[in-house]
Amino acid sequence: MYNTKAYAAASATSPLTSTQIKRRNPTEHDVQIEILFCGICHSDVHSVRDEWSDFMSTTYPIVPGHEIVGRVTQVGSAVTKYKPGDLAAIGCMVDSDLTCPRCQAGFQQFCHNVIFTYNSPDKHKTAPVTYGGYSDSIVADERFVLRVPENLDLAGVAPLLCAGITTYSPLRHWGVTEGKKVGVVGLGGLGHMGVKFAHAFGAHVVVFTTSPDKTEDALRLGADEVVVSRNADEMKKHEDSFDFILDTVSAKHDINAYLNLLRLDGNITLVGAPEKPLDIAAFSLLVGRRSLSGSMIGGIPETQEMLDFCGQHNITSDVEVVPIQKVNEAYDRLLKSDVKYRFVIDMASLKLE
Amino acid sequence: MYNTKAYAAASATSPLTSTQIKRRNPTEHDVQIEILFCGICHSDVHSVRDEWSDFMSTTYPIVPGHEIVGRVTQVGSAVTKYKPGDLAAIGCMVDSDLTCPRCQAGFQQFCHNVIFTYNSPDKHKTAPVTYGGYSDSIVADERFVLRVPENLDLAGVAPLLCAGITTYSPLRHWGVTEGKKVGVVGLGGLGHMGVKFAHAFGAHVVVFTTSPDKTEDALRLGADEVVVSRNADEMKKHEDSFDFILDTVSAKHDINAYLNLLRLDGNITLVGAPEKPLDIAAFSLLVGRRSLSGSMIGGIPETQEMLDFCGQHNITSDVEVVPIQKVNEAYDRLLKSDVKYRFVIDMASLKLE
Repeated sequence: MYNTKAYAAASATSPLTSTQIKRRNPTEHDVQIEILFCGICHSDVHSVRDEWSDFMSTTYPIVPGHEIVGRVTQVGSAVTKYKPGDLAAIGCMVDSDLTCPRCQAGFQQFCHNVIFTYNSPDKHKTAPVTYGGYSDSIVADERFVLRVPENLDLAGVAPLLCAGITTYSPLRHWGVTEGKKVGVVGLGGLGHMGVKFAHAFGAHVVVFTTSPDKTEDALRLGADEVVVSRNADEMKKHEDSFDFILDTVSAKHDINAYLNLLRLDGNITLVGAPEKPLDIAAFSLLVGRRSLSGSMIGGIPETQEMLDFCGQHNITSDVEVVPIQKVNEAYDRLLKSDVKYRFVIDMASLKLE
Repeated sequence: MYNTKAYAAASATSPLTSTQIKRRNPTEHDVQIEILFCGICHSDVHSVRDEWSDFMSTTYPIVPGHEIVGRVTQVGSAVTKYKPGDLAAIGCMVDSDLTCPRCQAGFQQFCHNVIFTYNSPDKHKTAPVTYGGYSDSIVADERFVLRVPENLDLAGVAPLLCAGITTYSPLRHWGVTEGKKVGVVGLGGLGHMGVKFAHAFGAHVVVFTTSPDKTEDALRLGADEVVVSRNADEMKKHEDSFDFILDTVSAKHDINAYLNLLRLDGNITLVGAPEKPLDIAAFSLLVGRRSLSGSMIGGIPETQEMLDFCGQHNITSDVEVVPIQKVNEAYDRLLKSDVKYRFVIDMASLKLE
């Protein structure tokens, strides 16, 4: 084991502060990565504040962060895919059983034994739970490490590991291609990636937002149209016309208004996770055989596919880079949607602690 | 025009009573049918009592009934598919534009100009709205008339026209076949048909019911297992195991308990239409990429396919035949689920009025 710097929260009401944590020395299949950038995801805030306790309660101290990019510093004896100096990334998972049907099918995120990057039981017993990317260094099995295209801005790559794959995966699964009309609800960290991907896939992209002042930016990101969702007349014009709508809003909101915009067999997929249940009117689903789905990040093979796609199409997240000393302030601003569109921590700042 | 006997309600609080209505004489493409049996659907009750006014308010007087079987008595000059004496059936629709993409794809039920069998504007101006099957006789375009297999019990055929196709269509759409594990929630008019079809398609069928005393009957109808949904332990045993669940319950209920029983990419389809919105927990959908859909009856081609399938597999609805003079009593009993499993009116009784 070795010590490394990190930022951790000691309780649901504590700020994140500088600390030291232990990491295991790389074993046979492990890759050790010096973390250069780590994105700040809404899930980090939910977990630090223990707001998802129904689903998975938080063990303290928590070191969040699952949008990790860096450089390989050391590899285990059996590692074949990485060597020191390579760019590498880690997303939301660092392990799973790799043998169950879900893992075999490439859906490690749904494995019953998945180990998330933070706040999951640490089978190596280095700590009670796994510690995430708000840290200098991380060690993970090479099967959960991703290759990073060399041509992309590294800070903008970090959010691809969660915001990117979370939006890429359902757009692919539901067949978003040229000729399809696709809606993206909400223009935040997830939404702005959804717009970039749907546009890159050739779809006609409509952004729904409650803030008319986001119009210009939405068009810049790749939207063909912007609809202010509070305007009932504007909404009505789009009735029965969408093949697919990606709903990225994590606050409670009226899904029925969007269900009614779907055409026959259209689908809305939720990627945000509102704490309170959504009210769904059965008729909104019955008429037009519509469906409402969820999607959660993506498996390792698809995450690699997404990163490769981003390299080919020069896609990164729009980010505001902050030093780790500003992380608590960034959380407050994130909750006010005061960021375009993702905070990313420059981990060089952690060396100053 | 000609006069025919019918049962109608004069207001949302009136009982159904004997009356005379007008029907058009068959035009070129029309088929005139002497109605022998008409099923009593939950929709009839909702419509008579104007309980679906948000979706479609009721014009009075209303003559309900859209599970109609009888014999052809007369055909228009251009009719090719039917001749007097043939068995024939009419379901939930009597017309649509037949030109829109939905009609062309065989989904007339979702045509924006669909004319339902009752309570839709009557384009022939015989009456303000269309009148349904609680009547001696009906006239409809041959393209909305179905052929009835000669080998089936006619009273048991009537409910196939709504309860049958409503359950057949989503089971087919979601790929229910041998090797699939399928749940049916609720064992009423719709549910008992869902069980029969899922069993006939070769699936492993599990019935969820709140009434343990329905177990024996569920097994007789084709279920492989019966789960009492109030028993949390029993429910837990089935977590993450269903490919598809058909939810036939039209009262408000906890869908999340069933979502959690779906395996990866599993689907629940609603065919009942609760008046109040359903509470859906986003995590129930996110984990396992599950989906919740609706389905509404079926198109004309699929309805014919379903009737032919029933002829081949000797499938009919389990019915309690009642004279039309008992229709109000039947409504009250239906609301108490006091019927196994569908009331069907023997229209010979109307001749006594």
